[in-house]
Amino acid sequence: MNKPSEFDAALLEEMRALLGDRVTTSRGVCEHHGRDESYFPCAPPDAVVFPQSTAEVRDIVDLCRRHKTTMIPYGVGTSLEGHVLAIRGGVCIDLSRMNGVLAVHEADLDAVVQAGVTRKQLNEHIRHTGLFFPVDPGADATLGGMAATRASGTNAVRYGTMRENVLALTVVLADGRVITTSRRSRKSAAGYELTRLFVGSEGTLGIITELTVRLYAVPEAMSAAVCSFQEIAGAVNTVIQTLQAGIPIARSEALCATTMKAINAYSKTGYREQPTLFLEFHGTQAGVEEQARLVQDIARENGGMDFEWTTKPEDRTRLWTARHQAYFACLQLRPGSRAVSTDVCVPISRLTECIVETSKDISRASMPIPLFGHVGDGNFHCEILIRPDSEADLEEAKEFNERVVNRALAMEGTCTGEHGIGFGKMRSLRKELGEAVDLMLSLKRAVDPENLMNPGKVVSTRD
Amino acid sequence: MNKPSEFDAALLEEMRALLGDRVTTSRGVCEHHGRDESYFPCAPPDAVVFPQSTAEVRDIVDLCRRHKTTMIPYGVGTSLEGHVLAIRGGVCIDLSRMNGVLAVHEADLDAVVQAGVTRKQLNEHIRHTGLFFPVDPGADATLGGMAATRASGTNAVRYGTMRENVLALTVVLADGRVITTSRRSRKSAAGYELTRLFVGSEGTLGIITELTVRLYAVPEAMSAAVCSFQEIAGAVNTVIQTLQAGIPIARSEALCATTMKAINAYSKTGYREQPTLFLEFHGTQAGVEEQARLVQDIARENGGMDFEWTTKPEDRTRLWTARHQAYFACLQLRPGSRAVSTDVCVPISRLTECIVETSKDISRASMPIPLFGHVGDGNFHCEILIRPDSEADLEEAKEFNERVVNRALAMEGTCTGEHGIGFGKMRSLRKELGEAVDLMLSLKRAVDPENLMNPGKVVSTRD
Repeated sequence: MNKPSEFDAALLEEMRALLGDRVTTSRGVCEHHGRDESYFPCAPPDAVVFPQSTAEVRDIVDLCRRHKTTMIPYGVGTSLEGHVLAIRGGVCIDLSRMNGVLAVHEADLDAVVQAGVTRKQLNEHIRHTGLFFPVDPGADATLGGMAATRASGTNAVRYGTMRENVLALTVVLADGRVITTSRRSRKSAAGYELTRLFVGSEGTLGIITELTVRLYAVPEAMSAAVCSFQEIAGAVNTVIQTLQAGIPIARSEALCATTMKAINAYSKTGYREQPTLFLEFHGTQAGVEEQARLVQDIARENGGMDFEWTTKPEDRTRLWTARHQAYFACLQLRPGSRAVSTDVCVPISRLTECIVETSKDISRASMPIPLFGHVGDGNFHCEILIRPDSEADLEEAKEFNERVVNRALAMEGTCTGEHGIGFGKMRSLRKELGEAVDLMLSLKRAVDPENLMNPGKVVSTRD
Repeated sequence: MNKPSEFDAALLEEMRALLGDRVTTSRGVCEHHGRDESYFPCAPPDAVVFPQSTAEVRDIVDLCRRHKTTMIPYGVGTSLEGHVLAIRGGVCIDLSRMNGVLAVHEADLDAVVQAGVTRKQLNEHIRHTGLFFPVDPGADATLGGMAATRASGTNAVRYGTMRENVLALTVVLADGRVITTSRRSRKSAAGYELTRLFVGSEGTLGIITELTVRLYAVPEAMSAAVCSFQEIAGAVNTVIQTLQAGIPIARSEALCATTMKAINAYSKTGYREQPTLFLEFHGTQAGVEEQARLVQDIARENGGMDFEWTTKPEDRTRLWTARHQAYFACLQLRPGSRAVSTDVCVPISRLTECIVETSKDISRASMPIPLFGHVGDGNFHCEILIRPDSEADLEEAKEFNERVVNRALAMEGTCTGEHGIGFGKMRSLRKELGEAVDLMLSLKRAVDPENLMNPGKVVSTRD
């Protein structure tokens, strides 16, 4: 394999001829690109390149293929299962300089962007149009990375995940062909669904260089609310009953008491340190008021205390910023710690049971494990706080994570709602889908026969 | 290839041992299974089998593979591009007896069904739950067939197509493996999106035997309206502006004056014989009233006449039955005719232009060509009425269809919004997606290396 010491000098030379100073083997840059937000140890690539166009990506792929060198696409490195780690060395293709918004079609409610555009950048760019892009995983990730990992986040319950919100992709394949997966029309029955094949393929089938994504009209009215409960079950049941009643809630996040404590300390907020729901309603003025009234009734029946409303835009922003910072806030519960994050998702009828059982498991753990998540989707996270140098902590965290995964699988759920497989969940994937993983492997071999595209992720060709 | 005369006697004997009288070579049954709703001439299979379980489908596939015989899955035969035609003979696998609803998870808003369950059967089955399955292509197709062709219909604008509404599939692969593509959780990032790969694969990658589909709460309030316009452009612009305003309209069908005339004659209705919008609103009582008021304002600005409301359930049913019968009603405009149906879909900003240009084209045609469609999706159909024995009509229809396809492609649209490729649109698919079709072919070869699964459809392995 391509260890740094053996890295192909001829390839490097050709790469420099192509890209000039936009190729580097600097140790600092390579190490920065060899880790993500996961707890996995750094695995640096041999070189990092910074293309500026689809044509340059194609040329890079051609060079790497000729030199039998692996390629790993990179956005901003906020993945959580080791997706970007260069576990077999090779070239990291950093797409962050491909950050142009190529077109905004206001009338069609879509935008065409390069893969390195981040979600906040896009929303800033289109702010004057009265439209917005809804998928919001918290981190200001690139849209290419979000597509590659099939990201979702707080308002997937209303607007869907990247699966629903990518209309078309431009992809560079391992053999250097550049394809467009679909036209820009809102729906199509034109052949196999290549768009969704690449959404969630984590860089193992090709490199996404451009995306057409769906936009939505900013609702006439938006309001958010916070509601505390004695028990987390009450919070979860409120959301479940809301969905079953067909109320189109826009966000519904449950947070455990530990998480609320961490948020108060980190974000200087004064929330009750009890199990809590953060809610958001989108619609017309009358529609939002009606939704809110119905949900308040449901919450009350489930032991919810009064809603605290945050109607001003700046208050809503503060609320969701606090929610998005939960991950970092929780890290401060154990200064110096790293997090192993679980990510299961179950049918909502099993969610309360899954969370209650997991809470019992948490109470037996030796470390703090805050729990929070997108309960409207059946998806929640436990943030297992480990000391980076403790083998015992890591072992305990892995066992905890495995128990959560097994619990979710036993409830017809999935090992990952939104973080993806990377190399952290490959065994869980096999447990979840069995022989279907062999079919994935056949697809991988058909599209990338030399196994040069982010090898060792999602499916292993060495099974 | 497997011509009827050479059909494998040994295979037939083994098939009879497996299925008893649920295998037939009767000419009548084979001819019935050798055509769909398209204008293509009948291409009967050599035999038709009627499995009752996934295990039986697997055994049938194993037998066919050992005898190198092609297999064509069949629902009720309402496809429109020759999907089910046995152009290379072989065995038609009729799934209509696999019509069990296996589970309804009311709390999770999903149902698990065998592939032969029809959409009306499912909705009848769950009527008491207050839930419904929304995808509605008009025909009472099987859910397996609707998944295989990525069907949609009148309310895709609100609820999405089969792409969005299938959560998981059980599929028998060409090599006899039985896989489940996903768990039942609402979202997942677990590996490649196999569910969406099979949705729209038209039986060429495997045989869908079970599906998990999404259900929705029946809205508290539903109301429908009819609105006439002097020009079709006014109707289309009304819908476009409604969507751009973020109003969550549930159905929005535009119908040309010729179609309205055909409907009045066929359904004994008394609509104005002018370009018309059929609309439906779903939500809470207040929400529906608000939506309707906003859309009425938009319609008025676009030259719409007063809304005629149909609030009673039976009136709504009559309205949508009339819409669904448009296809058959239009056939009566030229008694004895067959229809060549176009199916393009364009970004909505181009829809008015596309429809207006197509209407000019229609005015030059020698036959009646009614136009109607799901304008909220950018999708519309022209029903070209040809005399079945006229080569000249067929030639004119094909040329018209090709002009419509080229017009849509030039506007960044697709050659098929919902009917699929079958073998009728294979050349158009190549024109639309170019080298991406080669990638589809690589996937086909990886999954079905002997080309036994509905060969000669979607992608040709003989290119």
